[in-house]
Amino acid sequence: MHKVNLIDKFAQITDYWNPHIAGELNGQQVKLVKFKGPFTWHHHEQEDELFYVVKGSFVMELRDQNIELKEGDCLVVPRGVEHRPNAEEEVWVMLFEPAATLNTGNTENEFTKKELNRI
Amino acid sequence: MHKVNLIDKFAQITDYWNPHIAGELNGQQVKLVKFKGPFTWHHHEQEDELFYVVKGSFVMELRDQNIELKEGDCLVVPRGVEHRPNAEEEVWVMLFEPAATLNTGNTENEFTKKELNRI
Repeated sequence: MHKVNLIDKFAQITDYWNPHIAGELNGQQVKLVKFKGPFTWHHHEQEDELFYVVKGSFVMELRDQNIELKEGDCLVVPRGVEHRPNAEEEVWVMLFEPAATLNTGNTENEFTKKELNRI
Repeated sequence: MHKVNLIDKFAQITDYWNPHIAGELNGQQVKLVKFKGPFTWHHHEQEDELFYVVKGSFVMELRDQNIELKEGDCLVVPRGVEHRPNAEEEVWVMLFEPAATLNTGNTENEFTKKELNRI
């Protein structure tokens, strides 16, 4: 058992849209990811997804609204809901979701990461 | 769907050792709790528990070591492991754990909270 400092871990991440596994519990994973630019529209069939902004801000685009998320904000996107994160500037985001969650959900493209690194 | 700002939510909490539910996903809950002083020794039979320090610091006492957790630190206490959080000063902690988790685990005493408020 050991503690993990999220700020230190984020400092080690050098790429965008590549979630790194920082912890695991009850079949769920804590993933750290840096966003920059627009992601791809997708949804997750089976998984609700929590986004928590550690540093910076981004817009969660939904089909019927945009939600701006700033430092300290949390948002749960329920399964089945189409979404696209879009970050004008680099933002540090902690995800909490089932271990089986694929980053691009029901789609597969240049953003898809099937093998995640532990950090 | 709506965002939640953790700092704003913590500002509304006026008591210690009383987890408030800030979100729910995949059968898990995000709980916000202020610690101050020593808690009670306990473990959880079925649940791993994530502690994330939003503000302040505390010591996670384990039977074989103490782990000091500061702002930005995360710790997963696996099921079955006895632990006692101990905070010299007030600390703001986000918990992530299965919805069914009782705060005092296998024990029941003056710290036990069976009904949690949503915040």
